[in-house]
Amino acid sequence: METGVEEAIPGRSLPIARIVAPRSVAVVGASEDVGKFGGRVIHYLQKHGFPGRILPINPNRATIRGLPAYPRVSAAPEPADVAILAVPAASLEAQVADCAAAGVGACIVITGKLAEAGLEGAALQDRVLGIARAAGMRLVGPNCLGIFNPVDRAMLSSSLALEEDGYAPGGIGLVSQSGALMGTLLSFGRHHGARFSRCISVGNQADLALEDFLAFLLEDAATRAIGLYIEGLRDPARFRGLLRTARQAGKPVFIVKAGRSEAGAQAARSHTASLAGAFPAFEAVCRDAGAVLMEDPQAMVLACDAAIRLPRWPAAELGLAPIASSGGSTVTFADMLPGAGLRVARMSTATRAVLGRWMPESHVALPVDTGSFHEGTSGDGLSACIRAFMADPDVGAVVVPMTTQPDMAGRTALFPPLAREGGKPLLYLMTAGAVGDASRAVMRAADFPFFDRMSDALAVARALDAEAAGRLRAAAPPPARPDGAGPAPALPPGALTEGEAKRLLAAYGIPVTRERAAATVEEAIIAARAIGFPVVLKGVSRAVVHKSDLGLVRLKLRDEAALAAAFTEVAAALEAAAPGQAEGCVVQEMARGEAELFLGATHDPQFGPMVLAGAGGVLVEFLHDVRMAPAPLSAADARALIEGLRVAPVLRGLRGRPGSDVEAAAEALVRLSWLAADLGPRLVELDVNPLILRAAGQGAIVVDARATLTEETTR
Amino acid sequence: METGVEEAIPGRSLPIARIVAPRSVAVVGASEDVGKFGGRVIHYLQKHGFPGRILPINPNRATIRGLPAYPRVSAAPEPADVAILAVPAASLEAQVADCAAAGVGACIVITGKLAEAGLEGAALQDRVLGIARAAGMRLVGPNCLGIFNPVDRAMLSSSLALEEDGYAPGGIGLVSQSGALMGTLLSFGRHHGARFSRCISVGNQADLALEDFLAFLLEDAATRAIGLYIEGLRDPARFRGLLRTARQAGKPVFIVKAGRSEAGAQAARSHTASLAGAFPAFEAVCRDAGAVLMEDPQAMVLACDAAIRLPRWPAAELGLAPIASSGGSTVTFADMLPGAGLRVARMSTATRAVLGRWMPESHVALPVDTGSFHEGTSGDGLSACIRAFMADPDVGAVVVPMTTQPDMAGRTALFPPLAREGGKPLLYLMTAGAVGDASRAVMRAADFPFFDRMSDALAVARALDAEAAGRLRAAAPPPARPDGAGPAPALPPGALTEGEAKRLLAAYGIPVTRERAAATVEEAIIAARAIGFPVVLKGVSRAVVHKSDLGLVRLKLRDEAALAAAFTEVAAALEAAAPGQAEGCVVQEMARGEAELFLGATHDPQFGPMVLAGAGGVLVEFLHDVRMAPAPLSAADARALIEGLRVAPVLRGLRGRPGSDVEAAAEALVRLSWLAADLGPRLVELDVNPLILRAAGQGAIVVDARATLTEETTR
Repeated sequence: METGVEEAIPGRSLPIARIVAPRSVAVVGASEDVGKFGGRVIHYLQKHGFPGRILPINPNRATIRGLPAYPRVSAAPEPADVAILAVPAASLEAQVADCAAAGVGACIVITGKLAEAGLEGAALQDRVLGIARAAGMRLVGPNCLGIFNPVDRAMLSSSLALEEDGYAPGGIGLVSQSGALMGTLLSFGRHHGARFSRCISVGNQADLALEDFLAFLLEDAATRAIGLYIEGLRDPARFRGLLRTARQAGKPVFIVKAGRSEAGAQAARSHTASLAGAFPAFEAVCRDAGAVLMEDPQAMVLACDAAIRLPRWPAAELGLAPIASSGGSTVTFADMLPGAGLRVARMSTATRAVLGRWMPESHVALPVDTGSFHEGTSGDGLSACIRAFMADPDVGAVVVPMTTQPDMAGRTALFPPLAREGGKPLLYLMTAGAVGDASRAVMRAADFPFFDRMSDALAVARALDAEAAGRLRAAAPPPARPDGAGPAPALPPGALTEGEAKRLLAAYGIPVTRERAAATVEEAIIAARAIGFPVVLKGVSRAVVHKSDLGLVRLKLRDEAALAAAFTEVAAALEAAAPGQAEGCVVQEMARGEAELFLGATHDPQFGPMVLAGAGGVLVEFLHDVRMAPAPLSAADARALIEGLRVAPVLRGLRGRPGSDVEAAAEALVRLSWLAADLGPRLVELDVNPLILRAAGQGAIVVDARATLTEETTR
Repeated sequence: METGVEEAIPGRSLPIARIVAPRSVAVVGASEDVGKFGGRVIHYLQKHGFPGRILPINPNRATIRGLPAYPRVSAAPEPADVAILAVPAASLEAQVADCAAAGVGACIVITGKLAEAGLEGAALQDRVLGIARAAGMRLVGPNCLGIFNPVDRAMLSSSLALEEDGYAPGGIGLVSQSGALMGTLLSFGRHHGARFSRCISVGNQADLALEDFLAFLLEDAATRAIGLYIEGLRDPARFRGLLRTARQAGKPVFIVKAGRSEAGAQAARSHTASLAGAFPAFEAVCRDAGAVLMEDPQAMVLACDAAIRLPRWPAAELGLAPIASSGGSTVTFADMLPGAGLRVARMSTATRAVLGRWMPESHVALPVDTGSFHEGTSGDGLSACIRAFMADPDVGAVVVPMTTQPDMAGRTALFPPLAREGGKPLLYLMTAGAVGDASRAVMRAADFPFFDRMSDALAVARALDAEAAGRLRAAAPPPARPDGAGPAPALPPGALTEGEAKRLLAAYGIPVTRERAAATVEEAIIAARAIGFPVVLKGVSRAVVHKSDLGLVRLKLRDEAALAAAFTEVAAALEAAAPGQAEGCVVQEMARGEAELFLGATHDPQFGPMVLAGAGGVLVEFLHDVRMAPAPLSAADARALIEGLRVAPVLRGLRGRPGSDVEAAAEALVRLSWLAADLGPRLVELDVNPLILRAAGQGAIVVDARATLTEETTR
């Protein structure tokens, strides 16, 4: 198992487990005034029952909040495990040096205006890091908001979220590149009864990074589900490995990644001085590793909580069974499912039979309105229907969108036992305001999640379904190299000609159109006779990217006359388009089929080799119908990737048209993925556009391709 | 102005204004026990300070809750304006008859298991309605939850939502086909400080329908914004007119319509015995009338509230300006915008200059992280930036996604005056739990909306933007009939031939391909010479719908030999496909262009004539890229409809390709809309597929069309 938890060197390099649960904490800038940072930190340590020693540091006071104070960290009677600093940037360097001299294990640096603020701050951050490294002292931050550890009652933060009483310990581990967001989520989760193990604000990650804390949480027995708010990664390869480890450890990971949108990406860069990586590659890696990417941090916390406190969502792509006494709430919830990528369950015959006992046959349908139950059967019928749904193989979860009704709290109490007995999630929605508080209290007392918003329940249902998909992925065998995939031939650096790119593809067993070079009309005609009419004629130059835009491609040449005429024109166009760089003409087989796809390969600077598939031809550009996956990938993943395209119905055959050979396209994608994996950073990009898919069982063939390689020595 | 508020006939046919604010209320089945319906109704009337007379009806008691009780409604000392009944279905008929005999103005019938439960219930409902009609007594319901009227303190309901204290009067009028949902929304809104004028649960709408109450709310001075939860309409044409009236009255209407999804549609049908109409036509009519269709009833209430209590969103399709002290919250909010159909604003030079005073030039970007402000400038900088955004023409609203921070409540108090001064919406988000309650209290005290969820703020921003679009639509001139649009030629009922369909289109000035009938090869050749090669040959039979699937269409016939060969084949295929129903062949002009569209016209059973446009050819089927509008429509609307298609970028010209004549396509759509309007219910459907768009300025032409008419006498 890959982890980042270092062994403790005695007196130096404190392990994260001790930083998160220190025996002693020095608070630099301690104060009696809770309006000040240093006052709040001590107040919160005390208020939340910190069991270790608190060492207030203040040169002007003998005691603070009843504790003996010391003028400097180095003047304290013992070297603190952790020092918390939120001093002005101007005095940070001296204070960190004093901590280092005193043998402090780790500094949590709240101070901001460092690397995130510009070059001057970055230089100061580097100096501070140098001091810490030299002393074997760890740093959390700077520009962070500290650590919440309800398990050990170590609330090492000045966050106002700590104004709330009693954060009971639980299983949610959070790591966040935004401290304020983290504090907010802690308070938000508490309303729902969600409980946390450790929450870490990593700030600028000068020393300890998100990956280090993620590794810690994977080994941490208290943590059962993990939420991450990420702006940019320090070590993408390690991060990817840790996501896989999380799956093996049975700990679901839910992630919100800043920078999905262009504006978000820009802001995330300026915010914590970390590069927000390309989102599509990040998304592909998360899916591959079985982690769940979400949009909304609030929903992320609810999903972590649901993953811990609800029974497991049994498998991916299951339906939901909404049932409640309000037709209005179940119908609107059902209406919102397709927009969230979800669906209503299809009831089994057994389930229908059960429902038929409680309501008129004409009303047996999902969503279920218990208002249609036979007179006086509401409570019993509700329980019986929920039991039937729990046993129905197409049901992923039961949803109860409750509205105001008599004895709400009593009715509410029915659900936790039904969910536990049934072994599937039950999403309980209480959308009313204060009048629903008694019901919420029932759920808190039963240690059962509830939702205040239909939108929250939808986001969590989608996350739990994706989590189930990730769980199943983890059990799938790793990709295997197909016969005849590689090795790559020797090729020049830079832009390849179409012929070179196709040679590369052919070396991985990917079918390409037959072609022959032709320097003259006569050679072209001989080539065409060998290949068979109709043919395609193309002008070749590595200086030209979009050949068809420049008149360098002539399709469907049916006979020698047409070919001869085309040759003259293409040769002229070629000289015009790439003077002095023309590399002659090629005659190609004219491939036809039922459908076309775009395939691509690239090397992501963060995550390495990637493949793409998308709608072919001009559609790829306006539909943005492209999906990405890390390379190499398995045949099943390649198939799923292609089947996930919006254009998939066209591939399968529309309105009686024959389906196309998706299987062959998937194989081509697998082979391309091994090519990408083998070339590694040498591959800048490779586009196949189009891959022509023949009728099912007839194969697929690359009609055009282009590729660019770097110099072998440059990376 | 169209309204549904009838004049009061003295003593009979009470106007809705009096039903909603009665002077006296008889409660049938009154009880001391608040566990019982009749007990709760009286309790809530008293608790919420009903100023009129309450007449408890109970044959077994002299007084109830301190009030004199009467054995029957007809035994009370005066005829009540309103009687509330939640008696068992078995005694409903007798009780309603007694109310009628007593001269009661209206019965609010909570009793369920009527038309929604099956045939027996429907028969009872009809009898009850007959009794009421005969007496000139109005009915609300049955199967409803009554009326909340905070303006007149008339809470005529047993809903548990009335357990909450003090529903202060406000401007939101609600009409709902789900009573339980309505009570829930009332309580939900109250948490946010949203206040209501009148909320009406209409149930099965045996007598008074949603349209009646909507008409009432349009005239009601207390109501400033309207929310509707609709399952099915009783009078779609009247409803559409009322939406237009709402626009003229300056009252925005926000609607959640059940049945968007298939499962939802099914459930809505079974739920209140009302037909859930086709969603796309409903959506088109709402957009046309300037009403805002939403998905989530909770968000609908927040949108109504925001429309009343926030300054107006200035115009459609503006951007948002997120600003806060947490980079994490502003970035994730910005990331969620594109998914909600929204975007970050583009800052003007003036705005950039203001921001540059408060933060390093490198950080001047949206979203704004006030953490990057120069030291000590946070409060002033925040106000200055918000003022700049308020003045920026691309900003529709400022968004402040607040996270936990020192002096949250004090900071919160800054925003209401800034929004009021700036005259644009400011969406204030407090996503923390209890630690944010002090800030929420500040907003309630300032009478200013707040949001607990990013998802709520997104949904409301989208709704306000759509509301602005609707406001601007209302100011647009009505559609004008273009020259030469109609009249329609006489045509046979049933399926038309392609030629007949094209004649119909041509009569409305829509260009169609030239064609000539040809009974023999010789005639075909003569026709082709007149039209000019290449030509198209088609076999004609009104029995055949998809001609190309049967080999009845031959394209690109370049010369007489090719035409002659094709003629023989098509003639044979035609006899095979439609034995005895062949109507000969036609030779057509071969049209070419840059792009193609699908156009359609139909007559919606609820809303009348409709036109559609979508991606042409095979794309229309797999992209579901179709938009609908009521006919006739204006040129501007036709253009907007086509520009709104996903395929629009292709029409405008991709990657250097010439753009196509969208203007001509829009004109064809306008002319088609007059055709649909003129034919009315005679038109079953008319498809143009494809309309070929030539290069910009070169026009568009119908290549194929089919149509079906009903018998003129059938509708």
